[in-house]
Amino acid sequence: MNMDRNRSTRRSVSSRATAGNRLETDEFTVAYVGGGSRQWVPNLVQDLALSTFGGEVRLYDPDVESAERNAAFGNWVQERDDAVGDWEYAATDDLADALDGADVVLLSTQYDPTETFVHDLDIPASYGIYGAVAATIGPGGIFRAMRTIPVYRRFAAAIREHCPDAWVFNFTNPVHFVTRALYDEFPEINAVGMCHEVLHGRDRLASLAGEHLDIDADRSDISVNVKGINHFTWIDEAYCDGVDLWPLLDELARGEEGNRAYEPADLDDASPFTDSWQVSWELYRRFGLLPLAGDRHVVEYATWFLQGGREALNRWGVKRTGSDFRAKHWTPAESDQTTDVEAWLSGEREFDLTASDEVLLDILDALAGGEPFVTNVNLPNRGQIEDLESGTVVETNALVSAGEIRPLSAGGFPRPVRSLLSTHVDTIETVIEASRDGDVDRAFQGFLLDPQVRTLQTEEARELFAELAAAEERFLDDWRLDDAATLAAADAY
Amino acid sequence: MNMDRNRSTRRSVSSRATAGNRLETDEFTVAYVGGGSRQWVPNLVQDLALSTFGGEVRLYDPDVESAERNAAFGNWVQERDDAVGDWEYAATDDLADALDGADVVLLSTQYDPTETFVHDLDIPASYGIYGAVAATIGPGGIFRAMRTIPVYRRFAAAIREHCPDAWVFNFTNPVHFVTRALYDEFPEINAVGMCHEVLHGRDRLASLAGEHLDIDADRSDISVNVKGINHFTWIDEAYCDGVDLWPLLDELARGEEGNRAYEPADLDDASPFTDSWQVSWELYRRFGLLPLAGDRHVVEYATWFLQGGREALNRWGVKRTGSDFRAKHWTPAESDQTTDVEAWLSGEREFDLTASDEVLLDILDALAGGEPFVTNVNLPNRGQIEDLESGTVVETNALVSAGEIRPLSAGGFPRPVRSLLSTHVDTIETVIEASRDGDVDRAFQGFLLDPQVRTLQTEEARELFAELAAAEERFLDDWRLDDAATLAAADAY
Amino acid sequence: MNMDRNRSTRRSVSSRATAGNRLETDEFTVAYVGGGSRQWVPNLVQDLALSTFGGEVRLYDPDVESAERNAAFGNWVQERDDAVGDWEYAATDDLADALDGADVVLLSTQYDPTETFVHDLDIPASYGIYGAVAATIGPGGIFRAMRTIPVYRRFAAAIREHCPDAWVFNFTNPVHFVTRALYDEFPEINAVGMCHEVLHGRDRLASLAGEHLDIDADRSDISVNVKGINHFTWIDEAYCDGVDLWPLLDELARGEEGNRAYEPADLDDASPFTDSWQVSWELYRRFGLLPLAGDRHVVEYATWFLQGGREALNRWGVKRTGSDFRAKHWTPAESDQTTDVEAWLSGEREFDLTASDEVLLDILDALAGGEPFVTNVNLPNRGQIEDLESGTVVETNALVSAGEIRPLSAGGFPRPVRSLLSTHVDTIETVIEASRDGDVDRAFQGFLLDPQVRTLQTEEARELFAELAAAEERFLDDWRLDDAATLAAADAY
Amino acid sequence: MNMDRNRSTRRSVSSRATAGNRLETDEFTVAYVGGGSRQWVPNLVQDLALSTFGGEVRLYDPDVESAERNAAFGNWVQERDDAVGDWEYAATDDLADALDGADVVLLSTQYDPTETFVHDLDIPASYGIYGAVAATIGPGGIFRAMRTIPVYRRFAAAIREHCPDAWVFNFTNPVHFVTRALYDEFPEINAVGMCHEVLHGRDRLASLAGEHLDIDADRSDISVNVKGINHFTWIDEAYCDGVDLWPLLDELARGEEGNRAYEPADLDDASPFTDSWQVSWELYRRFGLLPLAGDRHVVEYATWFLQGGREALNRWGVKRTGSDFRAKHWTPAESDQTTDVEAWLSGEREFDLTASDEVLLDILDALAGGEPFVTNVNLPNRGQIEDLESGTVVETNALVSAGEIRPLSAGGFPRPVRSLLSTHVDTIETVIEASRDGDVDRAFQGFLLDPQVRTLQTEEARELFAELAAAEERFLDDWRLDDAATLAAADAY
Repeated sequence: MNMDRNRSTRRSVSSRATAGNRLETDEFTVAYVGGGSRQWVPNLVQDLALSTFGGEVRLYDPDVESAERNAAFGNWVQERDDAVGDWEYAATDDLADALDGADVVLLSTQYDPTETFVHDLDIPASYGIYGAVAATIGPGGIFRAMRTIPVYRRFAAAIREHCPDAWVFNFTNPVHFVTRALYDEFPEINAVGMCHEVLHGRDRLASLAGEHLDIDADRSDISVNVKGINHFTWIDEAYCDGVDLWPLLDELARGEEGNRAYEPADLDDASPFTDSWQVSWELYRRFGLLPLAGDRHVVEYATWFLQGGREALNRWGVKRTGSDFRAKHWTPAESDQTTDVEAWLSGEREFDLTASDEVLLDILDALAGGEPFVTNVNLPNRGQIEDLESGTVVETNALVSAGEIRPLSAGGFPRPVRSLLSTHVDTIETVIEASRDGDVDRAFQGFLLDPQVRTLQTEEARELFAELAAAEERFLDDWRLDDAATLAAADAY
Repeated sequence: MNMDRNRSTRRSVSSRATAGNRLETDEFTVAYVGGGSRQWVPNLVQDLALSTFGGEVRLYDPDVESAERNAAFGNWVQERDDAVGDWEYAATDDLADALDGADVVLLSTQYDPTETFVHDLDIPASYGIYGAVAATIGPGGIFRAMRTIPVYRRFAAAIREHCPDAWVFNFTNPVHFVTRALYDEFPEINAVGMCHEVLHGRDRLASLAGEHLDIDADRSDISVNVKGINHFTWIDEAYCDGVDLWPLLDELARGEEGNRAYEPADLDDASPFTDSWQVSWELYRRFGLLPLAGDRHVVEYATWFLQGGREALNRWGVKRTGSDFRAKHWTPAESDQTTDVEAWLSGEREFDLTASDEVLLDILDALAGGEPFVTNVNLPNRGQIEDLESGTVVETNALVSAGEIRPLSAGGFPRPVRSLLSTHVDTIETVIEASRDGDVDRAFQGFLLDPQVRTLQTEEARELFAELAAAEERFLDDWRLDDAATLAAADAY
Repeated sequence: MNMDRNRSTRRSVSSRATAGNRLETDEFTVAYVGGGSRQWVPNLVQDLALSTFGGEVRLYDPDVESAERNAAFGNWVQERDDAVGDWEYAATDDLADALDGADVVLLSTQYDPTETFVHDLDIPASYGIYGAVAATIGPGGIFRAMRTIPVYRRFAAAIREHCPDAWVFNFTNPVHFVTRALYDEFPEINAVGMCHEVLHGRDRLASLAGEHLDIDADRSDISVNVKGINHFTWIDEAYCDGVDLWPLLDELARGEEGNRAYEPADLDDASPFTDSWQVSWELYRRFGLLPLAGDRHVVEYATWFLQGGREALNRWGVKRTGSDFRAKHWTPAESDQTTDVEAWLSGEREFDLTASDEVLLDILDALAGGEPFVTNVNLPNRGQIEDLESGTVVETNALVSAGEIRPLSAGGFPRPVRSLLSTHVDTIETVIEASRDGDVDRAFQGFLLDPQVRTLQTEEARELFAELAAAEERFLDDWRLDDAATLAAADAY
Repeated sequence: MNMDRNRSTRRSVSSRATAGNRLETDEFTVAYVGGGSRQWVPNLVQDLALSTFGGEVRLYDPDVESAERNAAFGNWVQERDDAVGDWEYAATDDLADALDGADVVLLSTQYDPTETFVHDLDIPASYGIYGAVAATIGPGGIFRAMRTIPVYRRFAAAIREHCPDAWVFNFTNPVHFVTRALYDEFPEINAVGMCHEVLHGRDRLASLAGEHLDIDADRSDISVNVKGINHFTWIDEAYCDGVDLWPLLDELARGEEGNRAYEPADLDDASPFTDSWQVSWELYRRFGLLPLAGDRHVVEYATWFLQGGREALNRWGVKRTGSDFRAKHWTPAESDQTTDVEAWLSGEREFDLTASDEVLLDILDALAGGEPFVTNVNLPNRGQIEDLESGTVVETNALVSAGEIRPLSAGGFPRPVRSLLSTHVDTIETVIEASRDGDVDRAFQGFLLDPQVRTLQTEEARELFAELAAAEERFLDDWRLDDAATLAAADAY
C-alpha cells in the first residue's frame, strides 16, 4: 500500500479545508493577489503591524504601480514605533514569483467597475430588474461570475504549481462562484471563501442583546448556527454567552422593531450600506429562520423584495447601490470605502495605526497554534449542511485551530428555505459546469433559473443576456461566444 | 414470521400502483365519485357500452339529480342494439353505498367554477399575473389544490374503509396535488392519476411523422420516454414504430415549424385549447428536452412565457383560458366541452354511440388479462424518476398488464430542467404537509415558492393569498383560517 | 445550441439501455465474440434458423478453429429444409473485422477452466471456504472478475471504435462485474447483461401454479417483480396470468414443500444444477422476500448456507459444483452441457433442429418491431431499484419494444435485504474502481468485504488472495502485481 | 405564525445536541440514573468535589441501598477540607423524583452480569464465536442491546415528562444502540453518548509523538478527525499541536512498531484491557485510515481477527474478556475496576481525593460558559458524517461551548470502510425498528447481518439466537417472545 494513495484517499473523504503543518508565526510568506487594492491591503498592513507575526508580503498586481504604492505604505508603517510585527513588503507583476512557496495566499481582485459593474447594474435595470447590489447573483452577479471564474481557474492552477499547500483566502465576489471555481480547478486546494456579512450580523445581535436584555456583549459573545450560501445565510439558533436569544428575536420580529416601513425620502441621505433588517424580520415571520447576511444582499436571493422598483424596495429600508456609487468608489479621492494611502504617505492626512474588524489575523493566529477561533467560512459542502448538495460551496461556521479549519455541522433547512437556496445552487453549479469548456448556452440555462430573470419574458431574458455579453465581451474571452446559439440573432434559425 | 408483516413489508418496498387480482371482466363494479359529471360520465357510458365488459356502475354525487340523469342515460344506452357490454347504472348520494366492495373507483369532481375557478383566474390577474389556465399551479392552481385536498383525503379514508383493494383512477385536477393527497391519507391505496395531455402529444408526434417522414402512424405507434410532473412533463426520446424521431424534432425546432410568432389577432377566434407547440420548441432549444404537456399548461410552470401580459403570451401561440370561458362551460347548453345528455334522451339531438379517445378502457382491459398496454400515469415516485424526490407524485409511462400497473424507469434530468421541476415539487409537498393539520401559514410558504408569485412584491403576495382565501373561504373549511398570521391584517403585529 | 450536446445530455439522463433505430429483421449483422463456444453458438444457430430473420453472423475467436467449426455447423444447418431464417456464417480471429458495423454483438467467452476455474474452486476450498459454484462472487468469483474485466474493457473499447450503436448482449460471468466494466469503459454502450436464472424461476412458479392451483401455465404466464444483482435477485410479487401467487408461496414456505432436509447421500447422483429451493424458502421465511436465482448461486451471496462444509450445504439440497465437473465439461465428449457439433456434422449423432429456451430471439424480435417482450436484464441502475446506488449494474425486468430496452421500476428493499445486497455491490464497485489502474491493493479491499472471505483470519485472507494471484498470474496481466503490498511477503515490512 | 411551530421547525433541522440556556454553575441539579454504580459514581463525586460548581446530586437506583452507600460517600467527601465544589447527595428509588426539574441527567446502569453478560460471552463461544468483549456488537452485544433498549425507552419517556430540557449523558453500552433508542423515543432529547476509547487513543498518539518526534505532549495537544460509530471509530487526520502526525503513523505502521506478533503465552498475565494497536496498524495498512477505539473493541466490528480462536486473536495482542472476568468485577472486593467505597468510609483504605480522567466536568464547564472544549461524542447523524445515513448515532468530535454541543463536520469514508460500517449500522437500525413493537423476528434479521453471526450455518444462527433468548428471557420482557417464529422449534412449520 503506498503512501500517496493513502494521502489522496484521506484527502478525498476529509471535511477539512486545508492541509499542512501549523503556520510558523515568526516567519511566513504572504502572497497577495490583487496587491494594488485600496481597501484590503491597507487594512492588512495595519493588522499585520499590530500582530506578533513576522515575515514577507508579496503584493502581486498586473497594475504594478498600485502594488508598489501599497508596498511603500507597508514598509513605511513598519518603521513606526507602534508596529509590533516584523514584516517586509515587495511588489511584483509576476504571479509565479509572488506565489512561489507562499504559506498564505490572499485573493482580492477587481476589474475596473466602470467597464463591468456599471453594466451589471444598468443593463438589467433597463429591463426592469431593480437589483439592489448586482454583485453576487441575479443577471449582473452571474455576469460578474462569468468574468471572474476563468481568471480564478488560472489562479488555482498557478497555486497548484507554485504553492499547493498554501492556505488560500478568497475575498473576491461572488464568493460562492469564485471559491467553487478554485476547487473545481484544483480539488486539493486549501481555499476558504471569506465574507464579513455574518460578522456584522453578530455585531447587531450583540447590540440587540445589550439594548433589550441589558447584556454587555460584543460580537465575540454571540454564537449563531449560520448556514446557507454566501449572502443568503440563515440562522436557526443564536446565543449570547450561552443565553438563548430566540425568544427576544421572535418578540422583536412581531413588534415595532421588526415592523418598520420606510419612504424613499427616508433613505435619500442614507448610504447603500444602510441596513434596517426589515427584510430579515419579514423573512423570519414567513419562514421561521432569520437571514443573517445584510438585507441588501438577501433581496437578490429572496427576490420578492425587488419587485416594484425603488419605492417598493425602499419600503423595506433597502437602498439600491447605483452604478454611480460603484464608479465613484473606484476613485479614492471620492470614496470613503477605500483608503487614500498617498495622503498618509505624504502626511496630508494624519495616520493612526488601527486594527480593522476583519478576522483574518484571528484565523492566522489560530492556525499558528494560538487561541482556537470560530467564524463563518465558505467551503465545499461535505455534510456541514445536510440537505444541500455535496461539493457546492456553502457558508457555515468553522473551528479554526492549529493547522486546521474544520466546518461545524450545521444541520439542514425547512423545505421552503432549502428550496429557495437550491435554485441559486443550481444556477451556480450550472455556470461552473458551463465554464469548464466555455459553453455559453449552458451558462444561459443557469441564467434562466435565476428568479430575477424569471420576471422577464423568455425572449427578453435572451436579449438581456446577449446585451450583457456584448457590453462585457472583452472580459469574457474564455467563453466560446461565437458558438453560442443564445447569442445569435433570433432570426438565425 | 407472520404473513401480515410480509404483506406490508413487500408493499412498502414495491413500485407497483396496485394490488389484488385480475379484474373479472364480465362482472365488476365501478363506483363513480362525481357521477353527475357532464363530460366524463357520458363518455364512459359509451366506452363501456362498446366494450365486452359487464357489471354495475354506481354514480355517486351529492347533487344526486345530475347523477340520476347520467344513470338514466347509461341505462338508455344499454338498451340500444349496438351496446356490446352489459352494464347497469344506478345513482346515489351516499358515498359509502357507492364504494362498498367496488372493484374500480373513478374520481372526477368539480366545484361550481363560478364560485371558485373564476376567482383563481381573476384575482391573480388583478395583481398582474396572467396565468394561462390557473388550473394546476400558480396562485389559482394552488388554491384549487387547497380546496380539493381535504375532500380527497375524505375520499381516500372512505376507500380504505369500503373498498381498500379497488383500483382508483383520479381524473381531478390538480392531478399531482390530488393524487399525492390520496396516498398521503392512505398509503396503500391503488390510485393512479390520469391525464390525456401526453396522449395528445403522441398524437401530434404521429402527425409530424406522417407529414415529414411519410410514415402512416397514429398514437399507438409513438413511444416516448415521458417524465416530470403532471402538466410539466418532458420527453428525451421519441420513436415511431422503432424509428428515432429525434433528428426530425431537432430539425423542426430550428426551422420554420418551431419558429412561428403570433399576433393577438391571430388568436381571436381560436379556442383556448389551441396549441402551436411554440413554447415547447423554444424550451427544447434552450434545454435540449421537449415538453409534452400542452403549451397552455407548460407556461404555468415555465413561467417566463407569462410575463408581459396578453401580447407576450399570444406571441407563442397560447391563448389564456378566461374566467368567462370557464363559467360558460359550466352550463351545458353553452358548452361544447360538456355533453347535453337531456337533448339525447329527449331525442332533440341525435345520438351516435361513439368511443372517446380516453385510455381507461384499454387499461381495464389490460388489468383484466387482455393486451398489455403502455401509457402515461401519475404515481408516487419510487425511482421511476431517478432525481426527483421519493414519494412525490410523478408522471411517467407504466406497463399495464394482468393485475399490475408498473411504472417504467425513466431516468433523470439535466440539472436545469430538474431545477425547474423541483421548485414546483417543493410547492406541492409544502402544501400537502400543511394540509395535514390545516396550517395556512405553512401553505403560504409553498405559495411563495411559486415563480408566478415571485413576480410580486412580498406584501402583495400576502395580499393576493388573503384575497383568494377570503373569496373562497367556504371551500376551505378544513384549513385553520383563523389561526393564520398570514391572513391577519398587516397591522396585527 | 448544438445537436451533439443535446444528444449526449439526453443520453446521460436516460434510463434506456440502447439507442439507434429498430433492427431491420431481414438483413442484420451479428458479431459473436467467443464464437468458438460449444454451448451458446450451436443454440444460437438453431434459434436463428427457426426465426424469420436473416443476415450475417461473424464468429470471432482467437481459437479460430473452434469458430470455423461453428461456422461450418451454422452454414450446414442453413442448408436444411426446415431452416426458415436466411443466415450466413463466417469465422475470424480479427476482432475489428468481426465488429465492423455490426448491428448486434454477443459476448460469451471463457478461459480454459483447468487453468482458472479449478483454482477458483480448489484454492479457497483449501482454506475451508466451501463455495458452491465460485463463479460470480466469493474469492473465486472475484478472481474470475479480475481476469475478465480487463478483457472486456478491451472489447468495450473496440465496440466504441467499430460499432458504437450496436446492441451488445453479454452472457459472460460474472455478469454484474463484466457488464459494469463494459459501461465503465464506454458509458454510451448499448449493453445488456443476460442470465436465465430468473427464467428458470418463472418456470418453477408456473409449475407450482399448475400443481397447487390447477392453472395450466408456463413461463410466459408468470409475472414477477424481480430485483437485485445478478444471481442474488429477489421477488416481492408474483402473478400467474393476473392471479396473485403470494398466498400460495407463503403457504408452501411454511409447509412440507418449503421444509425439506437432505442428507449428503440424497445428492450423490444429483447434478450440481439440482435445485430444491430449500435455501430460497428459508430466506423467504427469514426476510419476507423470495430469492429467484437458483439456490446454488444464492448461497454464495447469502453465505450462512456455506458454513459447515458439504453436509451442511447438502442439507439444503444444494450440491457443490466441483472443479472436476468444471474440467470435464470443457471436453465436449464428456459433457452434456456442451454440444458435440462434430458428431452432428459427421452424422455420427442425429441432428434435430430445436429451439433453445433462451430469450435472445424474443428480444431481437421485439427490438425489430415485433411483439413487445418483458424479461429480466442486467443494466446500470438509473432508479429502477430505488435504494441501490446509481450506476451499479442491477437486475430487473425490462420492457423490450421497437428500438428500446427499458427497465421497469422495481422499487426497493426492506433494510436487511438491501444490506445483504449492498455489501456485494461494494465489493463489485471496489474491484471495478481498482481495475481502472490495476490497483491490486484496492482490489484486495473489495475481496476483504466478501462474507466468504470474512470467515478467514485476516492474514489467511491475504494468503488466499496471494495464492490465487500466483496461480492465475498469467491471466492477470493488466493488474500491477509487482506494486502490490498485499502480495508482498508478510515480512516485507 | 406561531412560536411553537418555529421552535419545532428550527429544532428539527438543527444539528446541535441540545437546547436550553447555559448551565448556572453554582446551583444545578444532577440526576444520576444508576446511582448505585461502583465505578462511575465515586469518580463523579471526586470530580465534582474538585470542581468549582455546586448543587444537588440525586442518585436513583432500584437497588436503593447501593445508591445510599454512594450518597453517604458523596456527602462524606464534601466534608473534607480539600473539597472545592459545594454539593449535596441524596439517594432515591423513585425515578420521577430523581428527574424532576433536573439540569443534567447521567445514565449509567448495568444488569447483574452473572445473569446477562456471562451468557453474552459463553453462549456464542459455545458456537465457536470467539468474541473479544461481546459488549456492544456481535451476538452478545446485540442481546445486550435488546435487554437495554426497552429500559432506556422508559428513561427517555420519563425525561420528556420530568425534565425535557435537561442535558443527558449516556455512559451505558452499547452506546450507539442505547443513544439511538433515547432519540427514537424522544426526538427532542438533549442526549449525548459518551465513551473514552477515543480519549485513550489520543493519549497514545501523544505518547507516540513524545517517543518519536520528541514533542512533550498530552491528550489535549492531540487533534484527530475522528468518525464512525462507537467502538468502530477511525481517524484520517492527526495533529499534535498543529504538527501533522500522519507521516509518523505511516512509518510506524510499516516498521517494527506496527508489526509485532504475539503468542498466547505473552498475554497470560495481561489484563484484557491491554492494547498493542496491532489490529489498528493492520487495518491502517489495508484501508489507509487508522481505527481509534481500542483493538479489543475494533475486532468485534472488523471480525477477521476473531476467526481462529484464542491463538489467532492473541497473535494480534488482543486478549479476550472472559465471562469469569466480568463476573469477578461485579464484586468490588475482587475488582480493581470498581471502587470499594465501604473501605474508604470505614477508614480501612486510605482515601485520596483524585480527579478521574473523564471529560464530563470539562463539558459541563464549557456548557456553563467556561473554556470551549472539543471532544468526541455520539449523536444522531445530521451530516457530520457525510456518507452514513441520517439519524443513525455516529461518533465524531463536537465543539462544546456555552449552551451548545455541536458536532464538527468529519467528512466521509473510502467506500470499503464505509461498507464495513454500514453493515453494523444496518444491524443497529434493524434492531431499533424491531424494538418499536417488540418484533423478535425482525430483530433476528438484524442479528443475521452481523459478520460474527454470518460465520454460522443458518440454522445454527437461529439456535444461537433462541438459546440466548431463553437464557436472558426475564430481561427481555418488552419483546414479544411468544409470537416469534424464529424462536419456535424448527418443526413448528
